[in-house]
Amino acid sequence: MDPIAYVNGSFVPLSEAKVSILDRGFLFADGIYEVAAVLDGKLVDSASHLARLERSVGEIGLALPESVARIEELQKELIARNQLDNGMVYLQVTRGADKSRDFPFPKGVTPTLIMFVTVKDIVNAPSAKTGIGVITVPDIRWARRDIKSVALLAQVLAKQAAAAAGAGEAWMIEDGQITEGGSSSAFILTKDDVIVTRPNSNAILPGCTRKAVVALAEERQLKVEERAFTVEEALKAKEAFITSASAFVQPVVTIDGKPVGDGRVGPMATRLREIYIDFARATAV
Amino acid sequence: MDPIAYVNGSFVPLSEAKVSILDRGFLFADGIYEVAAVLDGKLVDSASHLARLERSVGEIGLALPESVARIEELQKELIARNQLDNGMVYLQVTRGADKSRDFPFPKGVTPTLIMFVTVKDIVNAPSAKTGIGVITVPDIRWARRDIKSVALLAQVLAKQAAAAAGAGEAWMIEDGQITEGGSSSAFILTKDDVIVTRPNSNAILPGCTRKAVVALAEERQLKVEERAFTVEEALKAKEAFITSASAFVQPVVTIDGKPVGDGRVGPMATRLREIYIDFARATAV
Repeated sequence: MDPIAYVNGSFVPLSEAKVSILDRGFLFADGIYEVAAVLDGKLVDSASHLARLERSVGEIGLALPESVARIEELQKELIARNQLDNGMVYLQVTRGADKSRDFPFPKGVTPTLIMFVTVKDIVNAPSAKTGIGVITVPDIRWARRDIKSVALLAQVLAKQAAAAAGAGEAWMIEDGQITEGGSSSAFILTKDDVIVTRPNSNAILPGCTRKAVVALAEERQLKVEERAFTVEEALKAKEAFITSASAFVQPVVTIDGKPVGDGRVGPMATRLREIYIDFARATAV
Repeated sequence: MDPIAYVNGSFVPLSEAKVSILDRGFLFADGIYEVAAVLDGKLVDSASHLARLERSVGEIGLALPESVARIEELQKELIARNQLDNGMVYLQVTRGADKSRDFPFPKGVTPTLIMFVTVKDIVNAPSAKTGIGVITVPDIRWARRDIKSVALLAQVLAKQAAAAAGAGEAWMIEDGQITEGGSSSAFILTKDDVIVTRPNSNAILPGCTRKAVVALAEERQLKVEERAFTVEEALKAKEAFITSASAFVQPVVTIDGKPVGDGRVGPMATRLREIYIDFARATAV
């Protein structure tokens, strides 16, 4: 069955879901996106994703064409039309298609809003049991990584390098420290049982799953420190893991081919994954 | 009349020229573009633009779906079908539309190639006589500005700030020096009659018009120095100007509202503009 997508007010078969070649998302990467997980047909951590969407569009002066409440309704309708149980809803807003191509914001142009779904059994992903390897690459991105824009070419190149090396993610390095993964947040568990992740700033995306995991850990009296860390520190750590909306919590067992700790999936990553999945199910809408 | 565009092998009305919402140009800014001027129905400096296109796609591991010779034929056919005398041909190549959204390069996916034209009387643009103002903004772009990718959100924000300030271009500043304009190369003429422009590197786009203007100036025994310069130096210079495929040589008379030299269009910018237009006409294909 051809999946159903949403394009500017209409639900259409994905194969017919198109935008103008003048769309500013296509010409200028002038757009913002969000990916929310779906568990048992419900949206995971939806309020957090929609709040980040509002923040991102605000940072680039882009007005949403629909309220976030309406966007959530559309996401739910898309899930229903696709009979999606487990996977993700992708949504993207761009500054629309003007009559020609000019860098400054166009006037009187309606923003573009598109959505589509992907089937994925995130909970039962085999990599949660085996862990993944990551490689390190220089972080060559722009200075506003806190904006979830579709200007993702640096991340594409980073994650292609990871895929080519047989790794599951690329950790990006700036000034000797890990910023984050190509599409995930980076964590370690130190020998002293401290969960460490980089604090939010312009240098990283404010991850929704990162935020939830930090809050869930703190609620359980686990020690969390928000500070940057190096690859050397990660290799000496007990555990390493990543978080993202489309993978939840995922253990990292090697960095550039070298083992993290004993090179096996650790109990903290596994525990936080379970805690997050419980949270996700309990709060899904 | 609806202009004619080119999309993946077909010439179609621009209003019907569309790409899939899964196109990687739309989702990831995973694409490269070129803009070539058209004078009297002919392509300006075409070999230089096509050489840069080949270099850019090579830098991101993207194979062109057509040879550059064929691309030039298609550009010419598009010019003819639109009966375009003066303006630009825009072309964009992306890594195509896969069946879903995944960062690493897809396998077996044909790249997308689109083209459209814009009408513009570049030679007789009034701003060539009046000059333009520029504003300065921090250069927040990624580290590979030598690649002419569609990941242009930083340039959109820079040029929007310029437009909002009533200026014609934004000069981007890094480490106290001007890198380049949002969509142009930056030049000054010092008090000692030296033409100064920043050397090519990862920090700037290797401008085709920049390259031609430097070569044309040197052929005429004008002194050219390729080195970075500051706003302070530009304000103390005799003249400032920008170059781009869609504006040729354009005088800059103010920076952040302060006059460059005597604040009027100078003879060197005007002379180089004339020299470039002669070159463009003589070599157009």
